[in-house]
Amino acid sequence: MGAMERRVADLWFTEYQTPNLRLGLRIRDVLLNKQSPYQHILVVDTDQYGKVLVLDGAIQLTENDEFCYHEMMAHLVLCAHPCPERVLVIGGGDGGVVREAIKHEAVKKVTLVDIDEDVINTSRTFFPNVSCALEDERVEIKPMDALLYVKERFNEFDIVIIDSTDPVDFASGLFEPEFYRDVHKALKDNGLMIAQTESPFAEPKLLSEAVKGLRSVFENVYLAWGVVPTYPTGFWTYSVGSKNIDPRIQRRSAPKGTKYYSDDMHSLAFKLPPFVWEIIDGDNLKEAKAD
Amino acid sequence: MGAMERRVADLWFTEYQTPNLRLGLRIRDVLLNKQSPYQHILVVDTDQYGKVLVLDGAIQLTENDEFCYHEMMAHLVLCAHPCPERVLVIGGGDGGVVREAIKHEAVKKVTLVDIDEDVINTSRTFFPNVSCALEDERVEIKPMDALLYVKERFNEFDIVIIDSTDPVDFASGLFEPEFYRDVHKALKDNGLMIAQTESPFAEPKLLSEAVKGLRSVFENVYLAWGVVPTYPTGFWTYSVGSKNIDPRIQRRSAPKGTKYYSDDMHSLAFKLPPFVWEIIDGDNLKEAKAD
Repeated sequence: MGAMERRVADLWFTEYQTPNLRLGLRIRDVLLNKQSPYQHILVVDTDQYGKVLVLDGAIQLTENDEFCYHEMMAHLVLCAHPCPERVLVIGGGDGGVVREAIKHEAVKKVTLVDIDEDVINTSRTFFPNVSCALEDERVEIKPMDALLYVKERFNEFDIVIIDSTDPVDFASGLFEPEFYRDVHKALKDNGLMIAQTESPFAEPKLLSEAVKGLRSVFENVYLAWGVVPTYPTGFWTYSVGSKNIDPRIQRRSAPKGTKYYSDDMHSLAFKLPPFVWEIIDGDNLKEAKAD
Repeated sequence: MGAMERRVADLWFTEYQTPNLRLGLRIRDVLLNKQSPYQHILVVDTDQYGKVLVLDGAIQLTENDEFCYHEMMAHLVLCAHPCPERVLVIGGGDGGVVREAIKHEAVKKVTLVDIDEDVINTSRTFFPNVSCALEDERVEIKPMDALLYVKERFNEFDIVIIDSTDPVDFASGLFEPEFYRDVHKALKDNGLMIAQTESPFAEPKLLSEAVKGLRSVFENVYLAWGVVPTYPTGFWTYSVGSKNIDPRIQRRSAPKGTKYYSDDMHSLAFKLPPFVWEIIDGDNLKEAKAD
């Protein structure tokens, strides 16, 4: 019998980003694999991106690229607002957006509303560098349904950040005009809201409808974009709803130490490639031509 | 025996983007699978991105997102140059960069030098929308080693575009200072060159060294970035070497009908996230602090 090579275990996590597209990450180990009352929670340790949090099969964050997403979600609106004192974060139980929000001295209180306390505790256990701000005295945590929470708030927040999972199952209400109306009502007159609205390559229809829904509620809607390598296609969008502030104007400087967001990145994020304009304004452009 | 579900063939193409990261595309069929004298050529038909060209296991282009890459490689330098008449494209046998280059009326002649004629013919057969400009009368095709071709050219080109595969095997010379010196010599005084220089997430060292190599040869080096969903991590970089023109200034408008590139995208491409500045200027920043 000939010499055999030593064999090694080949462990991979695979995300089905669409039925026809998948991302594979070599893993060293599975650190957590459980069902919460709301969703499946998986934590894997990868060679490429460090530890990764996966909810219902979809990557939420990786240690190595989470800064791209969390910095943009927080600072695009916080740096556009003249004085953001009250901040509401919806979803985002991992604490990444909260961590960025409390970097702003103007912020007096951040309320985090996530339906799934297990996600919050998972982040505390496995992602200390992401969840680190959850113990800050300016942070209030409400483990409950954000749809119910927002319904009862009036003229209270300067900033609302909707850090949702994909719009399926219990999170789908977070992409509906009814919810946007409640967010509008919960915002002060100068208020700004931001929501992640997926990829124009993988989910053009979803993006188009999210923007349409926001436009039916907010006086002004602006689309921004950025890269998040571990989200489908890497090209991610952020939709901003505003009552009267123009969020494209940066009114306060980037906090120190950011790695993706900067003063430059703020202004460029609102400039879109032509194919993205076509997705969100294609119908209007066609109607304008037909007139 | 119970009823069985009808089974279907589950065909996938998998790209190992790094040893620890892989991208999977569901395929309908394999259209071409051959070894050329230089590399393995694969063409697959996918549900997500249309037809895909793969060289030595690395995705070169997909029908659905090739515009992101080809438009940036061509127009970032062609729109920065006051009058780009002579263009040299190195690699890029698929013809995508050539297609974009001849959209500029100023361009009198484009020379395409690709070592592998089989790639050119594969594109002609399977990617007519990419290779369409190869028959244009302003286009000259030289199937030969670009290292040898460039060595013999002096003060001839306004623009040199290095559309190379990854820097392994026969393409590795295209990332060396010796080659950059020959490109410098082949350029006119107002000349600009651009090269794809990989992803700062997947290949930070390679990016840093490519910029360093270019800086050792060119009077001015500028880094630009953009998204290409099917390239590793989606975040791609383009390095521009210049003798005296500042490529950040757009001197000529975008050609009509572009989908990724635009006047806005030109100027923003040269504004980098802080973590990318750190990769290409980190050593300088540290030295400056130590002084």
